[in-house]
Amino acid sequence: MFKKRDNIKEVEEGKYLEPKFSENGLIPVITSDIKTGDILMHGYMNDESLKKTIETKEAHYWSRSRKKMWHKGQISGFVQKVKEIRIDDDQDSIWLLVDIGNGSSCHVGYRSCFYRSIPLGKIKDLETLEMEFKENKKKFDPKKVYKNEPNPTKL
Amino acid sequence: MFKKRDNIKEVEEGKYLEPKFSENGLIPVITSDIKTGDILMHGYMNDESLKKTIETKEAHYWSRSRKKMWHKGQISGFVQKVKEIRIDDDQDSIWLLVDIGNGSSCHVGYRSCFYRSIPLGKIKDLETLEMEFKENKKKFDPKKVYKNEPNPTKL
Repeated sequence: MFKKRDNIKEVEEGKYLEPKFSENGLIPVITSDIKTGDILMHGYMNDESLKKTIETKEAHYWSRSRKKMWHKGQISGFVQKVKEIRIDDDQDSIWLLVDIGNGSSCHVGYRSCFYRSIPLGKIKDLETLEMEFKENKKKFDPKKVYKNEPNPTKL
Repeated sequence: MFKKRDNIKEVEEGKYLEPKFSENGLIPVITSDIKTGDILMHGYMNDESLKKTIETKEAHYWSRSRKKMWHKGQISGFVQKVKEIRIDDDQDSIWLLVDIGNGSSCHVGYRSCFYRSIPLGKIKDLETLEMEFKENKKKFDPKKVYKNEPNPTKL
């Protein structure tokens, strides 16, 4: 679907889009809030979801737990309006800058999925290291929004 | 090395660090510039490099091309001072907020690896879609800095 990768200089310094999908057909995606700069989530796309995201300007991912394309916000209503898409030097990861208004991105109920901070410095015991919550209030109640949808988090 | 993942509620809502490393033993890492908010790079860590990063407050990754732990800046001098580490809801991705001063992060010579932007909207032809360069000047000459080091970009 995309231009063939046959030249490293072209991949790194060229103007053509030649994304690299890994063996499972996916490319990792970083999604940040264009207003606050916060990272909202880390996800994956296959070739179809990247094309769909470019064309519709709404974020489409590949759900590894549900094994299908996933239009973010389809159930929750929290659609991500894509304002910019960037790709990295070797074209094997994507950065989406999105507008979610006053919405939310995390299925647990927080605005960002990255709501916990790991303490830095000498570690006494990795198993009892306590993280700090950086969001102290959920933006929505996932039970009300997702009802009987299965939880995407896996052990 | 880390606390065992045996309870989804604990993984999502708990204060303990229970990172999930995929089958290859790696967890994806997003690195952003704490001053500008820009994403600098997307990388991977194994358990040892995550521990080392927490303890030393300098970013350590796993190099998939060189198959070894990699202290960012070891060759180039562009060390990443880690100011904060966050983990996401299901604890399978990491966000590093780093200070690189007036340095650089990308082996091609740019400050950020994400120096190209993909145009949005209806696509006529994916193979001739032209990206826009968002950094117009390299911060350093990679040939001088990396000399005979092999290029980590693979086709």
